[in-house]
Amino acid sequence: MAITVVGSVAFDAVETRVAKREEQLGGSATFFSIAASKFTDVNLVAVVGEDFDQEYIDFLGKYSDLSGLVVEPGETFRWAGKYSDDMNARETLATHLNVFADFSPKIPDKYRACETVFLANIDPDLQGDVLRSLGPGKRLVGLDTMNLWINIKMESLVNALKQVDILTINEDELRQLCDEPNVWAAGPKCLELGPTIVVCKRGEYGSVLFTKAATFALPAFGTHDVVDPTGAGDSFAGAFFGYLDKQDDWRANEALKNALVLGTVLASFTVEAFGVDGLVQADKTAMHSRREGLSRLCDFAFDFDF
Amino acid sequence: MAITVVGSVAFDAVETRVAKREEQLGGSATFFSIAASKFTDVNLVAVVGEDFDQEYIDFLGKYSDLSGLVVEPGETFRWAGKYSDDMNARETLATHLNVFADFSPKIPDKYRACETVFLANIDPDLQGDVLRSLGPGKRLVGLDTMNLWINIKMESLVNALKQVDILTINEDELRQLCDEPNVWAAGPKCLELGPTIVVCKRGEYGSVLFTKAATFALPAFGTHDVVDPTGAGDSFAGAFFGYLDKQDDWRANEALKNALVLGTVLASFTVEAFGVDGLVQADKTAMHSRREGLSRLCDFAFDFDF
Repeated sequence: MAITVVGSVAFDAVETRVAKREEQLGGSATFFSIAASKFTDVNLVAVVGEDFDQEYIDFLGKYSDLSGLVVEPGETFRWAGKYSDDMNARETLATHLNVFADFSPKIPDKYRACETVFLANIDPDLQGDVLRSLGPGKRLVGLDTMNLWINIKMESLVNALKQVDILTINEDELRQLCDEPNVWAAGPKCLELGPTIVVCKRGEYGSVLFTKAATFALPAFGTHDVVDPTGAGDSFAGAFFGYLDKQDDWRANEALKNALVLGTVLASFTVEAFGVDGLVQADKTAMHSRREGLSRLCDFAFDFDF
Repeated sequence: MAITVVGSVAFDAVETRVAKREEQLGGSATFFSIAASKFTDVNLVAVVGEDFDQEYIDFLGKYSDLSGLVVEPGETFRWAGKYSDDMNARETLATHLNVFADFSPKIPDKYRACETVFLANIDPDLQGDVLRSLGPGKRLVGLDTMNLWINIKMESLVNALKQVDILTINEDELRQLCDEPNVWAAGPKCLELGPTIVVCKRGEYGSVLFTKAATFALPAFGTHDVVDPTGAGDSFAGAFFGYLDKQDDWRANEALKNALVLGTVLASFTVEAFGVDGLVQADKTAMHSRREGLSRLCDFAFDFDF
């Protein structure tokens, strides 16, 4: 089994209260691929510029098949942002789409049989194009989006969502998408748009997973030293879908909840260091140990007398 | 066993996106008493004005002993506030301390043997006075506070905290108190100020409990229709301390975690209706049923293969 991810590869400039990095590897597809690669094979569909050195290509190649990575004349997508002291809010200082502005994702023939697809946060028109080009019958289709597209391309987004199994989305975006300030009410409302499952990402507060029949909420792993939250949500999604890709019945509550646990675990590695530095170091031992920690954090009994 | 609570009884004017109430019974000690009364006997120490009608006194008397409720010439404390659409932020529109301005809590002799004491959010100088007047040797002392006191009476607050077993505090206040924007780092730092346990209340995101040896995090119950969050934190504390008051070993992790579950359950009733309306309707059957719901929400396994 394998998962095909369509998204961005970028250079990020990030400033947090801890430190500052001028140029580091980032982008939704980058974080997603590395996290997913810990569970399944990954096919990457993205575009970079001619400034994307061979060392970066080699780096990405360690985690995913790069037949879908296109190098175009021009510069790679660049994003610059600054985080608030509590790391819960960020300000975009600069966005240079560069080659990403004309990104028109082409799925290589060798990826077409791939049964799990994740459309990371890109223009919903492009997400729709990819879904049309792949045709129906995929086993599992995931999608992420952002406030920009809810603001300017709501119709395209709603159309794309009709063909999606699982939507991963930040809580503010979920509220906005469903025009419902209460997240617990917005989740079920969002399911009416098409997805069978909605995963609401709440940063340091954890995540909530909505199905038509049940809701599950998991705290985030309590990370004392958050260095750089960039990519945490994409790492979460990568682990989530990477694990589900390997499950015979990904729709089972148990599979979905396990995927939420692993998404939480992988996101916790990402935020501990700049860019992908924390994520790449998360080996099986570290992941098991962190899951133990999460288990202790969430170890409640609900059957006591009172 | 019984618990003595020292705090405010007030009339609140509350405006939320759902509706508006001009004058409803509120105050930290009110919510705390009603919630705690579901688990143990409660002694109330508070002050009201001559406008506090007999019907309100009779109402409070259903939940707690009122030997410590003093009626002073003047008006009862009044607070007016307006909540943001997502109910996560609130703006204070008016604060009229009235008789509360000169509140000097006196513990009736019949309460002095009471082994559990909760100092709800009042001036930390008064909290200190109460602790001095009661002397050492109490079985369990809890305290709550607010940003105002951190801003203007930090020294008094720090002094009071030295004599406290359990601090309950909102997350923003915890960050401010410890000058640490990361809640997971602020919790352990706060333990150094004196309390053995710190309970960080995060509103719709749930709560985190810190001991020197362990940390536990619990999501809030997912309430779809939040009508009025006023008093949720005090209801949480009431249930938390009310349950602990009845436990032989309140310091045991199991007891603390159960208390967190019940605090979460009781807070969920409070936010569903204006003022105390939701809280008073929470009978044993409803509490059991809601705990079941919370259990399903948090039902994760952490021992799967990956």
